[in-house]
Amino acid sequence: MDADVIDLADKLSLFSEHWSPKAVARLNDYEVKVVKIKGEFVWHSHEHTDELFLVISGRLTIRLRDRDVVLGPGQLFVVPRGVEHCPVAEDEVHAVLIEPEGTVNTGDAGGPLTAVVESL
Amino acid sequence: MDADVIDLADKLSLFSEHWSPKAVARLNDYEVKVVKIKGEFVWHSHEHTDELFLVISGRLTIRLRDRDVVLGPGQLFVVPRGVEHCPVAEDEVHAVLIEPEGTVNTGDAGGPLTAVVESL
Repeated sequence: MDADVIDLADKLSLFSEHWSPKAVARLNDYEVKVVKIKGEFVWHSHEHTDELFLVISGRLTIRLRDRDVVLGPGQLFVVPRGVEHCPVAEDEVHAVLIEPEGTVNTGDAGGPLTAVVESL
Repeated sequence: MDADVIDLADKLSLFSEHWSPKAVARLNDYEVKVVKIKGEFVWHSHEHTDELFLVISGRLTIRLRDRDVVLGPGQLFVVPRGVEHCPVAEDEVHAVLIEPEGTVNTGDAGGPLTAVVESL
């Protein structure tokens, strides 16, 4: 397999920590990231960008202020810019995130879950 | 399931034609499209943008001038802007494309395979 072919499962096998997205590809000025999610994140929003979640495995709930969005494998949801959301997963979820480079995972909330995005 | 939760398999079940990407979600000024691929496309490039291919099912070959890139399910590849490529699939492939809105499938080549992108 060529080095620039990205196998999502392979990339997800390279780390175990939760809430720490890893960049695996670049599309213009956007980053494609993989992330492992378990437990409850922090309520936050991204003022300047939409954020795409695509679930690879597991069941992800994205809490919005007015409803919960539930995603299973092969399902995606785009959180619109400025919309407060809080990802939650009872059991571990593997997901893909796509958003502009430099987007901070905790958005406007900051705090201890803020991650530096490494590349895999 | 909420209307704005996008199930890729559901969307792919709604059409049968090849080489005719359907927009299923929007991420800022980018479109997420699903496409069915079979046979050989046309050599082309996109002068102004990278193009992301993510294979959902089947085996996709993206011919480049100096090598072939082969993708299976769960694998993605970003064709860099300006790089000539020609997608080929012996058997039907289901894939996701992500690129800026307005990107024409045949790029600089044009011709009869040029598709108008409908939304699903």
